[in-house]
Amino acid sequence: MELVKTYELELELQRLRELRQGLEIRIKELEYAEGVITSRSERRIYRNFSDLLVEITKEEAIEHIERMRLALKREIERLRKREKEIMEELAKLRAPRS
Amino acid sequence: MELVKTYELELELQRLRELRQGLEIRIKELEYAEGVITSRSERRIYRNFSDLLVEITKEEAIEHIERMRLALKREIERLRKREKEIMEELAKLRAPRS
Amino acid sequence: MELVKTYELELELQRLRELRQGLEIRIKELEYAEGVITSRSERRIYRNFSDLLVEITKEEAIEHIERMRLALKREIERLRKREKEIMEELAKLRAPRS
Amino acid sequence: MELVKTYELELELQRLRELRQGLEIRIKELEYAEGVITSRSERRIYRNFSDLLVEITKEEAIEHIERMRLALKREIERLRKREKEIMEELAKLRAPRS
Repeated sequence: MELVKTYELELELQRLRELRQGLEIRIKELEYAEGVITSRSERRIYRNFSDLLVEITKEEAIEHIERMRLALKREIERLRKREKEIMEELAKLRAPRS
Repeated sequence: MELVKTYELELELQRLRELRQGLEIRIKELEYAEGVITSRSERRIYRNFSDLLVEITKEEAIEHIERMRLALKREIERLRKREKEIMEELAKLRAPRS
Repeated sequence: MELVKTYELELELQRLRELRQGLEIRIKELEYAEGVITSRSERRIYRNFSDLLVEITKEEAIEHIERMRLALKREIERLRKREKEIMEELAKLRAPRS
Repeated sequence: MELVKTYELELELQRLRELRQGLEIRIKELEYAEGVITSRSERRIYRNFSDLLVEITKEEAIEHIERMRLALKREIERLRKREKEIMEELAKLRAPRS
């Protein structure tokens, strides 16, 4: 029973880490985009909505990046917290019973 | 045998929920796109077809969003109905036999 | 042993079907794109290459669609053939031994 | 125990191969893009950053392709090396004990 629980927690931990790493990559990409957008003034910018791309202004893009950065950071923090909880549960399961 | 059946139904339920949530996100993105498209008149719009992006007019985009919204809502309704059926099957399997 | 074999073949069959359905959707999208591209002359078109979008002409887009259509159809045919083989193997495994 | 180890290594090998093949496709796409970009001078180019597309110059695109090509080749080399190690481990596990 404890082996199954350990296995499930390890899978969950791995899933959370992959999710978090994906969000960290998205933040880096958006920050890179911000660097490119603010480096010159004459670039067209599009935002992706499902299967449509809609042109947006530089100001709209920067506002979007700021909002996304905050939302992604909050979500990453939430995932890190959950990862920590699972690692503590795993440590307890692996500790020899006294 | 019943444990296996319960497990399979739970997996199926989870799969249906993730599918439905993905469709709900697509509707929200298309509605957001509609807001952006109709807020100003001079935005270029592209539609994604496999690996090609083709420019479309504002009117074509709005028509596409309306059609997609209807199709996605129908599909979400179908998934919700199937989820409800599975939850009823699960409730029966979990109920103590009389 | 035969149960395991049956299970593996069923998984493989499902994987092949999903792959084929994905390719069929890509053909439909490209054909839809062709309809839009040829319906008016003044649309800009981009082709997606990894993380870059490069503008292409209407002629280049139509040539790309024709080439992709042929390649996708060949691949769909190959998958169908493999699906048929697996279904025959499954029929044999499920047949009562004489 | 050895059967489980063999199975895990085979899964890992398959995962590494799929990852590597994905990277090889990305290199081919970027090289194809480079061919298209350098064949004519008047193409607009966009780079994808998460959900934003930002216009970049031909020079920026070529520089990006060169940098990506190097990074992808290094990663492919690393994966090939790890694949080779796993194949050697598998060969040992499968060899009859003397």
